[in-house]
Amino acid sequence: MSYEYGKPIALVRAGLEGYKKLYGQSVLEMDSMLAKVPPHPNQIDLTHGDTTAFLPPDSAFLDFAKAVERNTEAYSAYRGSSTVRNALAPRLTKLLGVEVDPVTEVIITPGTQGALYSALSSLVGPGTIVAFPATEYFMNERIVSYLGGESIRIPTSISKDGYIEIEESNLLAASSQGASVFVFSNPNNPTGGIYSRKMCEKLALWAKNSSIAVIADQLYCRLIFDGRDFTNFCALPGMKDQTVTLLGPSKTESMSGFRVGLAVAPLKLINSMESVLSMTSLRTAGYAQHALIHWLDKDEEWLAERIELHQEIRDYLVSGLLKIPGVEVTIPAGSSYVFPDFSKVKSVNQNNYDDDFVLTKDLKLAGVLVSPGYQSGFNGRGHFRINFSQHFDSIKLAVDRIRTLVQN
Amino acid sequence: MSYEYGKPIALVRAGLEGYKKLYGQSVLEMDSMLAKVPPHPNQIDLTHGDTTAFLPPDSAFLDFAKAVERNTEAYSAYRGSSTVRNALAPRLTKLLGVEVDPVTEVIITPGTQGALYSALSSLVGPGTIVAFPATEYFMNERIVSYLGGESIRIPTSISKDGYIEIEESNLLAASSQGASVFVFSNPNNPTGGIYSRKMCEKLALWAKNSSIAVIADQLYCRLIFDGRDFTNFCALPGMKDQTVTLLGPSKTESMSGFRVGLAVAPLKLINSMESVLSMTSLRTAGYAQHALIHWLDKDEEWLAERIELHQEIRDYLVSGLLKIPGVEVTIPAGSSYVFPDFSKVKSVNQNNYDDDFVLTKDLKLAGVLVSPGYQSGFNGRGHFRINFSQHFDSIKLAVDRIRTLVQN
Repeated sequence: MSYEYGKPIALVRAGLEGYKKLYGQSVLEMDSMLAKVPPHPNQIDLTHGDTTAFLPPDSAFLDFAKAVERNTEAYSAYRGSSTVRNALAPRLTKLLGVEVDPVTEVIITPGTQGALYSALSSLVGPGTIVAFPATEYFMNERIVSYLGGESIRIPTSISKDGYIEIEESNLLAASSQGASVFVFSNPNNPTGGIYSRKMCEKLALWAKNSSIAVIADQLYCRLIFDGRDFTNFCALPGMKDQTVTLLGPSKTESMSGFRVGLAVAPLKLINSMESVLSMTSLRTAGYAQHALIHWLDKDEEWLAERIELHQEIRDYLVSGLLKIPGVEVTIPAGSSYVFPDFSKVKSVNQNNYDDDFVLTKDLKLAGVLVSPGYQSGFNGRGHFRINFSQHFDSIKLAVDRIRTLVQN
Repeated sequence: MSYEYGKPIALVRAGLEGYKKLYGQSVLEMDSMLAKVPPHPNQIDLTHGDTTAFLPPDSAFLDFAKAVERNTEAYSAYRGSSTVRNALAPRLTKLLGVEVDPVTEVIITPGTQGALYSALSSLVGPGTIVAFPATEYFMNERIVSYLGGESIRIPTSISKDGYIEIEESNLLAASSQGASVFVFSNPNNPTGGIYSRKMCEKLALWAKNSSIAVIADQLYCRLIFDGRDFTNFCALPGMKDQTVTLLGPSKTESMSGFRVGLAVAPLKLINSMESVLSMTSLRTAGYAQHALIHWLDKDEEWLAERIELHQEIRDYLVSGLLKIPGVEVTIPAGSSYVFPDFSKVKSVNQNNYDDDFVLTKDLKLAGVLVSPGYQSGFNGRGHFRINFSQHFDSIKLAVDRIRTLVQN
């Protein structure tokens, strides 16, 4: 007998074969084909923020270095160093507007992705039905499928100024189909839309009445534009006990290279999440946890400047995209994402950009690397996502290249 | 309706309820009860190595700092930075004795635990039968249960000088029960025993004839005592194509606080492992990956000294334990673990140490924190594990405390 590798069924499910109906290929196949398109010699990568354009705060590395020097926390509790959790708890309390207990309600994770995976694994098993807004972070659906759950997409609309709206009837349709978990990013990945207080209250009432656990992915909750109000979901009446809030310094603070994130959740869920984390990677890197020691600490001025700089880039980018005939785009209310709709756009070589796989491939050939719409779900059809946390010049060049590709 | 949290079945399985038969409690329950025992005011923690006793090499932090300074690899490929994989491949080739391709055969993971979880998730699904040696790293069984697989323990014996032996008939019994995956740590966690070339060849023949995928956990493969030979399993004829080798700098090099590890495996498995990693945490921390840039690089002298220092501590510890009436222990051939058998020992207060839960609890009360035998499986009954990568004085004090606890 010779050895032949057979993939476990969970991993096959994670390939999202269902996308073959619409795209002719599974998500995994499309991802790997896009990866094989040779990169442009001067490629602009807009799939993630550029940490050389917006630097992490100096304290992150200095605190990391101190932890290496002291060298007493190479091994922390699985849920994270108590020193770090104690330092963060009062600031998390202030940020979220609810009391956060450092011992029982916080877990430090390998990136916010680590928090998402642990949270979903603590809530989803075979047959669990998980509801998302129409466009959401692509990993949600992949992980839910991997865990044997089913995904339902709830229709949404988004106003020109970036507020996401969900009809009550659509929420009730999801719960009557058996949804027991709701995951939403606020600000939304990929559109940059946010949920108003009124909308959050509507969601909370629904979650309460239907006993739905909520994962509120608030990774971008500090990068909110034009002075808009932001509503922390877990601070709404009754919601703290059934909400996992995902946070982290990888975006607004550009601390992506340290790979730390965290979740605030009720004790029972924290215990389950810790059990998952102990299996996937034991704990978040001990030294890197200390890079969080000054996170959220009296940085109002620093934050205001960072918001302003991102806002300028956003405005340039959105108006540049809107000049292209046929393009539709809403103004992001937060985050560093825009998610333009190119479904009515045709390329110079007459490719139909209703197919965002083709669109993303053409953009890569033209030197602009973006995230294809299918990664945000079926409703991402004809769209792509740009992360505009970049050098301003990169965004200018990218807009030029996109325009050249599709100009009639 | 109010919200009530229900744990997914996979997480319930990971609690290893089966241990209730022997111990009256599940592993999860025992772990959490032990955690609640108040710590001694001057506790010696022997559950893991002390990174202040054996420091990481300076290059680790310096290379990390350079990566932060350069700041171009906050986001690497999911399987890890190509710069780091390229630097490591020739050294891995030398270490393992097989050609290692940096593009298709290496994945960098969040600790070696991240490699283990990704490897098991790529091989185990509901109904998969996984075989282990009688005593093994406790996370194997937990993860296999979590993934819906079943664990079989293969009886082993161990010689006084630390060589592990498995009878062919016991291997064949495992394959005829349907085992399709074999996981073994070499050196063995928790005993420090190693597998001779002859024994490895026997395992390889069995794996080949029975089409069994092998996970060789070689985390400790550089800490081998008394000049013994060490056999790399993947270098045996035909084994490269069906073996995942787990490696990392967290033990011998004390780089635990950076939380990096890696696996060498055939392409198809690397692809699956990358898919798992992308869900659990996207990638290993970008900066921390660079702490590996000088790993395994011309460090023969440094390594020889580190082995010698550990050997001295080992010899003191083993002879100290053997002076206690009733204690049995084999000399570790590698690693920094010893796994003494206290099942025939009674405490001064007449507790029966056949029950390693009671034993571990008493040791914690006496100021010595160790890993209970049940964490290495049913066959760990009456044992506990010490990690002796410690300050020599800590080991001396620990031996005194253990002796006081059980002296007649």
